[in-house]
Amino acid sequence: MKKSGKKDLALIVNNGPSYIAAAVFTRNKVCAAPVTLTKQNVSNGTIRAVIINSGNANACTGSTGLENAQAQADLTADALSISSEDIAVCSTGIIGEQLPMDTLAAGIPTVVHALDASADAGMNAAEAIMTTDTVAKTTFVSEPNFVVGGIGKGVGMMAPSLATMLCILATDAEITPDMAREALRNGSAQTFNTLDIDGTTSTNDTVILLANGSSGYRPTQAEINAAVLKACEDIACQLQADAEGVTKRVSITVTGAANDAEALVAARVVGRDNLFKCAMFGSDPNWGRTLAAVGMADAAMDPDNLSVVFNGHAVCTHSTPTADAKDVDLSGPDIAVSIDLGTGKTGTATVRTTDLSHQYVEINSAYHT
Amino acid sequence: MKKSGKKDLALIVNNGPSYIAAAVFTRNKVCAAPVTLTKQNVSNGTIRAVIINSGNANACTGSTGLENAQAQADLTADALSISSEDIAVCSTGIIGEQLPMDTLAAGIPTVVHALDASADAGMNAAEAIMTTDTVAKTTFVSEPNFVVGGIGKGVGMMAPSLATMLCILATDAEITPDMAREALRNGSAQTFNTLDIDGTTSTNDTVILLANGSSGYRPTQAEINAAVLKACEDIACQLQADAEGVTKRVSITVTGAANDAEALVAARVVGRDNLFKCAMFGSDPNWGRTLAAVGMADAAMDPDNLSVVFNGHAVCTHSTPTADAKDVDLSGPDIAVSIDLGTGKTGTATVRTTDLSHQYVEINSAYHT
Repeated sequence: MKKSGKKDLALIVNNGPSYIAAAVFTRNKVCAAPVTLTKQNVSNGTIRAVIINSGNANACTGSTGLENAQAQADLTADALSISSEDIAVCSTGIIGEQLPMDTLAAGIPTVVHALDASADAGMNAAEAIMTTDTVAKTTFVSEPNFVVGGIGKGVGMMAPSLATMLCILATDAEITPDMAREALRNGSAQTFNTLDIDGTTSTNDTVILLANGSSGYRPTQAEINAAVLKACEDIACQLQADAEGVTKRVSITVTGAANDAEALVAARVVGRDNLFKCAMFGSDPNWGRTLAAVGMADAAMDPDNLSVVFNGHAVCTHSTPTADAKDVDLSGPDIAVSIDLGTGKTGTATVRTTDLSHQYVEINSAYHT
Repeated sequence: MKKSGKKDLALIVNNGPSYIAAAVFTRNKVCAAPVTLTKQNVSNGTIRAVIINSGNANACTGSTGLENAQAQADLTADALSISSEDIAVCSTGIIGEQLPMDTLAAGIPTVVHALDASADAGMNAAEAIMTTDTVAKTTFVSEPNFVVGGIGKGVGMMAPSLATMLCILATDAEITPDMAREALRNGSAQTFNTLDIDGTTSTNDTVILLANGSSGYRPTQAEINAAVLKACEDIACQLQADAEGVTKRVSITVTGAANDAEALVAARVVGRDNLFKCAMFGSDPNWGRTLAAVGMADAAMDPDNLSVVFNGHAVCTHSTPTADAKDVDLSGPDIAVSIDLGTGKTGTATVRTTDLSHQYVEINSAYHT
């Protein structure tokens, strides 16, 4: 499917004994055919295999696209001798072209035949789902009694939700579908949902957690939550570090908001502001643009009592600059920005983003349909 | 005030016989001292003079900033022998530094002394309010019985509302304060409020209409609305054409929305989408990114019945690509995008924006605080 001849098809199979699964998806109203199909198939809490192609997103492809996603599931189910209702399908790549079904029909039996549980298998799968990613993303969380492993991809159109973010996690813990859903909801909320590279939300984003219970260990909700959160956190950091055109990794923490939800709204507005992001590219502690951005947020704030801190250095207090505001050094690759909304309340949230660089513009203007 | 030594102070005086005025301001919660002062002074429907400095925005300057804005008004009022409550103050430039009051105290009598009604005066004023603008913006609308003239500036942070958009219009029509407010509200709504260069909203944006009645002609509301709209339209087009880093002027029209308000929301979401804007820079008819962007809008739509037209060429119908979708030529400087949300209703709106270019990033990362 990829003209480059690189790997473009990954298959993840749960060998049981149980086949628990949960998933979260893009919130975009324009969602891709594989998202529609996978939503339906995971609704009963069970998935036995995930087939993922890169190079073609099967998005904006109408009823033919839905038929093709179903055929992709059917081909996979046939080759594995399981029900096609137990298949999750993920696609990432170009929008608006039909899947090359002949190529897929030939490729699916090939990947089924090549299935293995070797140490290289995860990395091979992670490479097969890359698009403009420059590095493969994998994670492995080892708890005393169980493990969580996973692969991810995504470099742009993340809010969290295009160039498509995909993440498949697997655990040998013995958990119920409700526990899987809660662990994934909790983990995504604190990681993928607060990663905002360009404010753009994909048509295809999917995060899936598979659990086969093979460890025989039944973790508490808190235990599985913690392990899944670690895995999500690890993949999310790798997505941020490989974001399109990134030269700075920027974390924006808002405090002093009326509540956590408003803090998140305010952090997101700043994280999406192009002038702020250009300032970060220029290593410029531009608290003026920071205040101008946060002032547009639909969140309670005291306009005369806003504070801004860059990398632990206060640059603005009571909405006016500190004496040494210009002395902070932002030349390194990581920038931490803290903004206090001055309401006296304790609402807080953190969003991770990147700078807006020449390379971002180059990648996204040269990459033609 | 400007280190370059270029003009940085403009004064516009209404010589009467009447001193009617209306104004609209930034919606940013973090608004500059001159905005706070001018809001208060224009509230009675009367303004006799507008003093405008460039080079310093007097924003995020605390109580000292407010005192300085008041002193700026007082100095102007004293030099003109009028009340300081009849003065509007506008500032544009760097955020977070106090106004150089000694420089202003020397400059205000100088501009008062230099006041003239020559043909060059408007252009001189337009030049004095420029920051990163590359050309001065003026307008002149001649109706049979009255005229509307004006100056404007603004190249970024427009949504419509930083690098600050300012516009001062003046008419010799004889109108009431309510008529002035209605004409300015109507004109701004259709022009400055639908101009969205980078989704960023200034701390200083101000649009003022002055009316002195010297023509002796009393236009109907419709007449004054039409003339003010033409003047706003002319200035808005000049702002779009001189926007930071612009290589493409892009208009986005949404049709088939449930109502006009939702159409505007959808058009704005597309106009602010970085991936869409990068595609425009690349002359790429990327309807996939267009749909992905519109799908995030808080507006009713039929995800299976979306249509996209670039420069009159249908590229997507029923959410799937047309056969010749790739044949449309977007190499020219103007791109018109139409998106139908497929609801069957007639809500419509147009937003004007620009592409996201290397030059935009350069201007906004190199311009340090």
